[in-house]
Amino acid sequence: MAIENVKALTFDVFGTVVDWRSSLIREGEALGKKKGLGVDWPKFADAWRGLYQPAMEEVRTGRRPWAKLDDLHRESLDKLLVQFGIKGLSDPEIDHLNRAWHRLHPWPDSVPGLTRLKKKFVLATLSNGNVALIVNMAKYGGLPWDAVLGAEVARHYKPEPEAYLTTAALLGLAPGECMMVAAHNGDLAAASAVGLRTAFVPRPNEHGPAQAKDVKPARDWDVVASDFVDLAARLGC
Amino acid sequence: MAIENVKALTFDVFGTVVDWRSSLIREGEALGKKKGLGVDWPKFADAWRGLYQPAMEEVRTGRRPWAKLDDLHRESLDKLLVQFGIKGLSDPEIDHLNRAWHRLHPWPDSVPGLTRLKKKFVLATLSNGNVALIVNMAKYGGLPWDAVLGAEVARHYKPEPEAYLTTAALLGLAPGECMMVAAHNGDLAAASAVGLRTAFVPRPNEHGPAQAKDVKPARDWDVVASDFVDLAARLGC
Repeated sequence: MAIENVKALTFDVFGTVVDWRSSLIREGEALGKKKGLGVDWPKFADAWRGLYQPAMEEVRTGRRPWAKLDDLHRESLDKLLVQFGIKGLSDPEIDHLNRAWHRLHPWPDSVPGLTRLKKKFVLATLSNGNVALIVNMAKYGGLPWDAVLGAEVARHYKPEPEAYLTTAALLGLAPGECMMVAAHNGDLAAASAVGLRTAFVPRPNEHGPAQAKDVKPARDWDVVASDFVDLAARLGC
Repeated sequence: MAIENVKALTFDVFGTVVDWRSSLIREGEALGKKKGLGVDWPKFADAWRGLYQPAMEEVRTGRRPWAKLDDLHRESLDKLLVQFGIKGLSDPEIDHLNRAWHRLHPWPDSVPGLTRLKKKFVLATLSNGNVALIVNMAKYGGLPWDAVLGAEVARHYKPEPEAYLTTAALLGLAPGECMMVAAHNGDLAAASAVGLRTAFVPRPNEHGPAQAKDVKPARDWDVVASDFVDLAARLGC
């Protein structure tokens, strides 16, 4: 199916649309200042994100039943509080820190680019983040989604095929009428394998200054754009 | 839970947000003119909507497996084309007519009211319409939803409790943190029975000039508003 048939763009969110690392560091530093904590917050942010794939893998393999990302984040956070020796936080304070994922900042081009793309395409999230997380993040950052779909409604975490196929089906579209937009080659490979079109938008600072992975397209994706404003231009918006 | 705790408004859509009857009549008349059909389009629109509850009841009772509303609408339409003696439509033309439900016009106060309400609340659809139908309708009419949830993601048609409870759960909220907005007393009764707060917005012309049902609140709902702009004012937006 030709690129001209694409009716919806489906977005990876963490890293692609929002800058999770800087946002978490900022939240951590504010908390540290308030509570007098001596924590290496960049290291903390990387450690928290580091527990992300292993936590989802427990669900993907069926070793545990479905659990939404807010709950996986909280379990990881509880481990890290011990590991980093962080004490003296009340349960509401820990919950607030866990919900830092609901308050991630968009990259500077995200809202302007999405606003242009929204005029021509249906914009849906296809994230591993649960619906509440993505909805609250959208309210916080002004992200103009038409639909919040992805892992939780499919009850399958990416890169499982069901996450992509259920999202396309809920949009009433064939996979080839959807284009996955992501900063991660692996996400695009999984989307492509089940028939979605692909757009790669590198975020070379997602993991900080030393990032080596996903700085370039690993394959000849349908579109490669430098940011969301460039993506809008390349897609004729 | 007090009304001050409400974080999300969940909306019935057909009749409450959009004027399905006038929209269907307009679409029918345009098609009739183009194809030279002599059809009583108000009668046709009422007959189509008349098959809505019986079709969903087949799913609710388990007599048939889950089927989305687009498919139920199409089955009803196929029956009505025979019943009204409508001939000479191609399959794409019949499909286009079926998708008239994706092109329903908002009531005049819907977009201005929702735009105000969106600043304070999460706005989610809690409709029996499937996701694609509601997403396309929102693009068509400029309805600023934060999330499109309801029957299809719950795989239960209203007024089954699961439709309301799954929507609240996906928003990460307790039922009492959600307020159901509807022009139908029955919808509010079912929402209230599982703990949602309630707002009644009468649409006395939904069924045309002879409407007798749902012109007034049947119970002491939490909020009664004359339209969506009045609802925004009553909810402090």
